[in-house]
Amino acid sequence: MKKKTVIGIIGAGRIGRVHAEGICNQIPGAHVKSMADPFMNDETAQWAESLGVEFTTKDYKEILDDSEIDAVLICTPTDTHARITREAAKAGKHIFCEKPIDLDVESIKETLRVVEEAGVKFQIGFNRRFDHNFRAVKDAVSAGKIGDPHMIKIISRDPSPPPVEYIKSSGGIFVDMTIHDFDMARYLSGSEVVEVYVQGAVLVDPEIGKAGDIDTALITLKFANGAIGSIDNSRKAVYGYDQRAEVFGSKGSIASGNDTLSTVVLSTEDGIISEKPLFFFLERYLASFVQELREFVQAIVDDTDTPLGGLDALRPVQIAIAAGESLKTGQAVKLSY
Amino acid sequence: MKKKTVIGIIGAGRIGRVHAEGICNQIPGAHVKSMADPFMNDETAQWAESLGVEFTTKDYKEILDDSEIDAVLICTPTDTHARITREAAKAGKHIFCEKPIDLDVESIKETLRVVEEAGVKFQIGFNRRFDHNFRAVKDAVSAGKIGDPHMIKIISRDPSPPPVEYIKSSGGIFVDMTIHDFDMARYLSGSEVVEVYVQGAVLVDPEIGKAGDIDTALITLKFANGAIGSIDNSRKAVYGYDQRAEVFGSKGSIASGNDTLSTVVLSTEDGIISEKPLFFFLERYLASFVQELREFVQAIVDDTDTPLGGLDALRPVQIAIAAGESLKTGQAVKLSY
Amino acid sequence: MKKKTVIGIIGAGRIGRVHAEGICNQIPGAHVKSMADPFMNDETAQWAESLGVEFTTKDYKEILDDSEIDAVLICTPTDTHARITREAAKAGKHIFCEKPIDLDVESIKETLRVVEEAGVKFQIGFNRRFDHNFRAVKDAVSAGKIGDPHMIKIISRDPSPPPVEYIKSSGGIFVDMTIHDFDMARYLSGSEVVEVYVQGAVLVDPEIGKAGDIDTALITLKFANGAIGSIDNSRKAVYGYDQRAEVFGSKGSIASGNDTLSTVVLSTEDGIISEKPLFFFLERYLASFVQELREFVQAIVDDTDTPLGGLDALRPVQIAIAAGESLKTGQAVKLSY
Amino acid sequence: MKKKTVIGIIGAGRIGRVHAEGICNQIPGAHVKSMADPFMNDETAQWAESLGVEFTTKDYKEILDDSEIDAVLICTPTDTHARITREAAKAGKHIFCEKPIDLDVESIKETLRVVEEAGVKFQIGFNRRFDHNFRAVKDAVSAGKIGDPHMIKIISRDPSPPPVEYIKSSGGIFVDMTIHDFDMARYLSGSEVVEVYVQGAVLVDPEIGKAGDIDTALITLKFANGAIGSIDNSRKAVYGYDQRAEVFGSKGSIASGNDTLSTVVLSTEDGIISEKPLFFFLERYLASFVQELREFVQAIVDDTDTPLGGLDALRPVQIAIAAGESLKTGQAVKLSY
Repeated sequence: MKKKTVIGIIGAGRIGRVHAEGICNQIPGAHVKSMADPFMNDETAQWAESLGVEFTTKDYKEILDDSEIDAVLICTPTDTHARITREAAKAGKHIFCEKPIDLDVESIKETLRVVEEAGVKFQIGFNRRFDHNFRAVKDAVSAGKIGDPHMIKIISRDPSPPPVEYIKSSGGIFVDMTIHDFDMARYLSGSEVVEVYVQGAVLVDPEIGKAGDIDTALITLKFANGAIGSIDNSRKAVYGYDQRAEVFGSKGSIASGNDTLSTVVLSTEDGIISEKPLFFFLERYLASFVQELREFVQAIVDDTDTPLGGLDALRPVQIAIAAGESLKTGQAVKLSY
Repeated sequence: MKKKTVIGIIGAGRIGRVHAEGICNQIPGAHVKSMADPFMNDETAQWAESLGVEFTTKDYKEILDDSEIDAVLICTPTDTHARITREAAKAGKHIFCEKPIDLDVESIKETLRVVEEAGVKFQIGFNRRFDHNFRAVKDAVSAGKIGDPHMIKIISRDPSPPPVEYIKSSGGIFVDMTIHDFDMARYLSGSEVVEVYVQGAVLVDPEIGKAGDIDTALITLKFANGAIGSIDNSRKAVYGYDQRAEVFGSKGSIASGNDTLSTVVLSTEDGIISEKPLFFFLERYLASFVQELREFVQAIVDDTDTPLGGLDALRPVQIAIAAGESLKTGQAVKLSY
Repeated sequence: MKKKTVIGIIGAGRIGRVHAEGICNQIPGAHVKSMADPFMNDETAQWAESLGVEFTTKDYKEILDDSEIDAVLICTPTDTHARITREAAKAGKHIFCEKPIDLDVESIKETLRVVEEAGVKFQIGFNRRFDHNFRAVKDAVSAGKIGDPHMIKIISRDPSPPPVEYIKSSGGIFVDMTIHDFDMARYLSGSEVVEVYVQGAVLVDPEIGKAGDIDTALITLKFANGAIGSIDNSRKAVYGYDQRAEVFGSKGSIASGNDTLSTVVLSTEDGIISEKPLFFFLERYLASFVQELREFVQAIVDDTDTPLGGLDALRPVQIAIAAGESLKTGQAVKLSY
Repeated sequence: MKKKTVIGIIGAGRIGRVHAEGICNQIPGAHVKSMADPFMNDETAQWAESLGVEFTTKDYKEILDDSEIDAVLICTPTDTHARITREAAKAGKHIFCEKPIDLDVESIKETLRVVEEAGVKFQIGFNRRFDHNFRAVKDAVSAGKIGDPHMIKIISRDPSPPPVEYIKSSGGIFVDMTIHDFDMARYLSGSEVVEVYVQGAVLVDPEIGKAGDIDTALITLKFANGAIGSIDNSRKAVYGYDQRAEVFGSKGSIASGNDTLSTVVLSTEDGIISEKPLFFFLERYLASFVQELREFVQAIVDDTDTPLGGLDALRPVQIAIAAGESLKTGQAVKLSY
């Protein structure tokens, strides 16, 4: 029997727990040895134990110091990602880090430099690339089924806005929400974004506007390969979490729709009614959270590149910053890297 | 029995013939008395006669001079629309004019002034407003089913590009193709466009680029009522004439799909295959060409406003010109009227 | 210019008028010269005149006696079809007869014998074969796309039951409703029905049961070519006129869905809602009524067989009679012809 | 922390393994202590150990004798189900048994009598009731959304036939395949089947006919509550595992479609192509295998009835036997229980 990849999870909040359950229940080739969280308590420790986690602690450095541990998942608040990533790299651990590493480009670059020097594997947590629908879109494009891509179109609407307090601290819609779409645009186009233009508005909740953010946006992208694209964002689609993409090209179009709880269709005097999109992102994307780790572990086992490396961590933040500038100036902003 | 509205058709090209057949076969309250075309020949005259048209001529002035004729349809080449409209107005005829009146804003304004002075009815031929799908979208919006509109999204892709020679003389994509979408954006939003931004590309055929035009475009709109919108254009969707719209708002979304020849679905080892969108615009929009005239005739009979008046003829041209400017400068262009 | 096929319409009720309008407005190669109806009045005569019909009368024999008339459409009550068909045949007129010729098999056979002797063309009015959806199903089968047919499945549900008084005189569900489906089964299978079994129930309205009929039925068919099939009937589908078919075979399945007023989809908190099937049979099948006559006229012009001849008039009645016997006995009934 | 329900699994073939993985990874309230299989070997034992199973053996009696074990899953060949069920009942274990208990009605009845005497819980493995799609159909019916059920329609087509050798020993299509549909018919109708009629054919493979079975069937059902229904079976739907149901009633219809790998739609010159139904039953129904056990465990914990008891084990076999009789005689067969 092959040795399992031994993993420590740093951060036992919502996403840390999702990852723990995913690995323990669905990735036989990996073992979560330890979990660390400054707020670790008995209840969390018991839950971890029930999954087969051997060790829980308040101090993530115990994980970094554990020579048995091959890789860490960094699931802590965003403002600690860069620092812990650097420490983990220096400790020789392979790293899976939730997005984004940082909101500061220089900090990201420095962190990636440290990672590279350490020679450890690094993967950033843009889970949507591992979603069955988006992957099927990408696969069709890669297989040449739609010819040369001309337009990349992404619809990404949340079911309801986060608390305004969160928005105040998150860095705004481009870094807390659209950043996934910027990654998706790069993934589906197979190219870099070289220009961005934003038309934004506050239409969902004036409080969001008062907090200095927008809640509705149409974003236009130009790619290095000549293709163009758009992202359609709203903080509130009352019918559910609307997550779709289309790539249109010289030989046709490939488009993904939403997932639903079931396929049933009700026909009555009131119309023909089918199910709404899944509402909650963890429900919608659960399988993708497992799949991104499955491929991370596989990259360690096979000693290959991870599917989402350093540039994939850096570029979306750069695009988000340019988007913010476009929103402020009302004009298109060019990116050069 | 009520007196029929008597109509003369000026121009016996493709669209003039479509209108003649529509009125003769499907609008019992109207009668096409005469058709004029400088290239009128025996074959066309016979075809007209078989429909019940009484009189054919090479000189449209015979129609303007005929006191029995209540209304004219102007179906001639674009560069004659303004002049003939003015002449018809002065002759006291109600006017249905194919779009656009002119590519020159001042000429349009002058023409509309003459029409107003004459006190005749005027309707511009943006037929898509009368299409069953787009009208169902509009009706849902008007009925408040999606609440306040936040985003207006239009997909408008032609099945194949026109000859490059045509593009050279047409004024380009914004005036020969997108102009319908600019009208649709005004229709669905119920508001005026106050800002436009274009990201365009030549991806279908380099000859189109050499002719000074683009063939692929993503256009962002801002409306006076605060909503935002986008238009997605391609000169070539190999799977057919892709004509869709969505209005997204505070209470949901209403979206239209494409029409097909049939509803059949073929399930085989190769996949689940349904019909492509109708390919040809006359096939796709045939019923709308009849409906726009039905409502034009009704406005005459009831002495009410036509559904699409002077501003509806002017504004799309103004937006198209601004779009051209945005494409040239690479920046958003504000419109003030 | 080619001579038009001259037509007389016998019966100016609902279907007679539909046919008159279809020919006058959409079949340029045919001309309706005369219409006869025992209840002909000024209003109907004026309506006919406005369509271009030259002559109206209360006496259909004037049509049979008119040597200019090439063909007649028999749109009278069912109990007169056989007699008038025979008279028209003897008068040398080509005949389009609404279904059924008669409810009595011997009368149908005798009528068909007379028609054959007269050497005139005969077509029975099973219009659904000319519907775009069902024809697309048939075309896929004929093109071999689903291989050898194994199962023919027909769903045929009315939006609401006819008056009970009608049911009492119509001959019941199998002859007034399912007869179309028996024809469709023969059409789609390309084979004859050799066995029929009915499971029926009174679930919509007990008054229908008191009138000696059923309102809900599942009918199983066996075809001469070895395929099997089913028909699903209800007198009342509250969501609309549900008219679907599927042919399942060795290489796959071809299935048709319903037509709707538009393609719009409304997404709200209540679900994803699309349009109901068209409700009214004339709306749903209007184009098929024109198409059946277009092909009838073409058969006259080309001197070829009509698309639906004598056997197509006879067999569905025989199957309907066998279905009635199965309902009564509760057992499967074999057919031999 | 609550005590887990301790489970022994008898039979480590395909379905036994699916259940072991389901419980170990997704049912935290249950623990698989032991697995037994006469062919238990090192590989299987290691796989079991990796899941957390404590004990493996060739002799299932060790499981029955283990007083720590609360419940057993019987996943052995069909001809052992009845005997092991009786032994397990006598040993005081709660029982989950794969379907069917037996092909012999008297044996089933005797087994259920022993189970009842022992006072243990019993659940039969008709997993499809726990499928998200079929459950959504049932929930809509239970909620009164379609009013009174009039027709229950089930489409159940396998992607490819089993080996003819299997068919020879399985008891034939009604007991190895349709039995699930008989259960579904009872579930969706909420009523008992009182009459069955079969029209069957050998159209997929003549070898199946030589083995004394059919491969294509249309089955008509009558229910005690007056509703009627049909089942459509084929051994070979080349486009995938086609598993659908509809309940049609006085207020409308609820219908389920197939599950697919993704929602993507490819639009090309060849058509609009979407994904085929999932092909393999374990892929299609995986979640339902977990859910049936989750509810089984919950019934033990709550000391309530299991969702599928003794009658649910007996009735489908009785219907299958009647179906066989109908196929042989060509006539409808009444059931009385």
